[in-house]
Amino acid sequence: MPELRKDPVIGRWVIISTERSKRPGDLAPEMQDAESAGPVSCPFCAGNEHMTPPEILAYREPDSRPNGPGWLTRVTANKFPALKIEGDLDRQGIGMFDRMNGVGAHEVIIESPHHDRRTEDLDHEQVVRVLTAYRERIEDLEKDPRLRYVLVFKNQGKAAGASLTHPHSQIIATPIIPKDVKEKLDGAKSFYDFKERCIYCDVVRQEESMKERVVVDSEHFLAFCPFAPRFPFEVWVIPKRHSCAYTDIANEELDDLASVMKEALSRISKSLNRPPYNYLLHTAPNRIPRKGHWHTLGNDFHWHIEIMPRLTRVAGFEWGSGFYINPTPPEEAAKYLREVVL
Amino acid sequence: MPELRKDPVIGRWVIISTERSKRPGDLAPEMQDAESAGPVSCPFCAGNEHMTPPEILAYREPDSRPNGPGWLTRVTANKFPALKIEGDLDRQGIGMFDRMNGVGAHEVIIESPHHDRRTEDLDHEQVVRVLTAYRERIEDLEKDPRLRYVLVFKNQGKAAGASLTHPHSQIIATPIIPKDVKEKLDGAKSFYDFKERCIYCDVVRQEESMKERVVVDSEHFLAFCPFAPRFPFEVWVIPKRHSCAYTDIANEELDDLASVMKEALSRISKSLNRPPYNYLLHTAPNRIPRKGHWHTLGNDFHWHIEIMPRLTRVAGFEWGSGFYINPTPPEEAAKYLREVVL
Repeated sequence: MPELRKDPVIGRWVIISTERSKRPGDLAPEMQDAESAGPVSCPFCAGNEHMTPPEILAYREPDSRPNGPGWLTRVTANKFPALKIEGDLDRQGIGMFDRMNGVGAHEVIIESPHHDRRTEDLDHEQVVRVLTAYRERIEDLEKDPRLRYVLVFKNQGKAAGASLTHPHSQIIATPIIPKDVKEKLDGAKSFYDFKERCIYCDVVRQEESMKERVVVDSEHFLAFCPFAPRFPFEVWVIPKRHSCAYTDIANEELDDLASVMKEALSRISKSLNRPPYNYLLHTAPNRIPRKGHWHTLGNDFHWHIEIMPRLTRVAGFEWGSGFYINPTPPEEAAKYLREVVL
Repeated sequence: MPELRKDPVIGRWVIISTERSKRPGDLAPEMQDAESAGPVSCPFCAGNEHMTPPEILAYREPDSRPNGPGWLTRVTANKFPALKIEGDLDRQGIGMFDRMNGVGAHEVIIESPHHDRRTEDLDHEQVVRVLTAYRERIEDLEKDPRLRYVLVFKNQGKAAGASLTHPHSQIIATPIIPKDVKEKLDGAKSFYDFKERCIYCDVVRQEESMKERVVVDSEHFLAFCPFAPRFPFEVWVIPKRHSCAYTDIANEELDDLASVMKEALSRISKSLNRPPYNYLLHTAPNRIPRKGHWHTLGNDFHWHIEIMPRLTRVAGFEWGSGFYINPTPPEEAAKYLREVVL
């Protein structure tokens, strides 16, 4: 059973993953995983459905059958999950330390049957399916009262942490609110307490009026390089309508989001020669707990997606201080991204 | 002039580094720098002193002259500094955002004249010189009232962010207290406020009594794998005597620290086949500001060094949540490190 442990000074929980337990010989610097697997041996390719756990959700051709070919987007449990769905949390102290069982969900969203097609290469309808799968899985997972947060993220490319080439997103649902998420919730809350306005709404208005960091401006979304980005060419996608939870997105907005994500990722891909990247969906904590004890937490939040191309190495200075050195001013990055010809 | 910018939601400052400004073509994924430079072209090798800025500090053979050969440990300004020592902070708002000039120091500590000798390979006296240089430079930099924090860190190996092979440490002195440092200070303070004890002293006592995570136990220091490490084989070195500031270390303690660091790094090096690693010195904020407005900040802190072998890739999940998956329980890591034959 994986275990969650808390750092006693700063309160950061970590997962000690027994499933993935590594002895020194297994830990090669900069591990190279099964990235080279081609369509024959790739567990995410059509025809290889038996190589993954059974599907949790799939959007399929009308005449196709579960766990066989004919799917367009498919969700399964992660074969090597960081957290396990069965069991109780069993929170306890060990002397001054705190631990609990690593209960949670770890799922894989296989974005399309195409082995080599990155998210930005998918057609519009396929991106809509991926974003719809995110919504459907979050809605389902937040019904579990043991879980407090659902994090949707994507690792594109080996340098971004992907262990398989075939484009996929991941979902990890956790019994705690992760530390960096909590900081954003707290930051948004204290701004709201002081100003009685949402800070992300203010950011959208300021970026719209300054224009110099805007990448894509659509009816419902603004994609821009943030004022103080950690990484070169970092792009945030924020809905213009205030809403704390991604699951509240309307179908019309989701359709627009698919266009904006495809365009933002295509601009990054074209400008930077198909770089590795990560993106993350930041949404409010789960609804069910919010109705009880946690009900105010997150209402002043504003969901958004952060896209981070992986171009620079993170070194000792950053790890130790949380203080990042970014060699590209976001105004320059936004100008490149806006002007690149797709 | 580099610029410091603050994220409006979570209050994290980043350095937008104009000196190192990168256009898309310059940003190759996983940049490979001048690591292959050999002794002839290495700016840190003896005889090449003209390739670096003038030395700020050097421990030298009695008959040698500044900025020539004959040094044992040498400190210079970084040729491509992330922050600049000249100028005023000029703090100002831009709409809702905050920025200031990137004023600070960025120095390089060339640990020895030997191009290929990692810290753990140096003889005891040479490690003492490196640790003494840390103390001397922090003492000097904290006299500058514009600076609030001095961070000493080391990147060993390309995967850990080193751009030159020749072993060196770095110092960055900043006009703000970096976010992760502030969290540790706050965590230690709130524990102290509640318990009237230092949390790090408690951790040392608990690790000493549990023994299972201890790597090296010396007269003045405990080296151990922390209870909730972010990374496999992470090791912390903590002084047994409560002290907030590294600069208060006595010579006898510094001598002991050199032995403990050499042993801990050698055990990591042997167990993991000379892996890339980072280490960081966490010490209290600068003294001068502490005497005025900041005088209580950091007195309940406890300085220490964190060593992080770089064996796993950090992927989207970690970047977006601050929630780390560590595949090696620290008890197993400590057992390996204790038992490996040096």
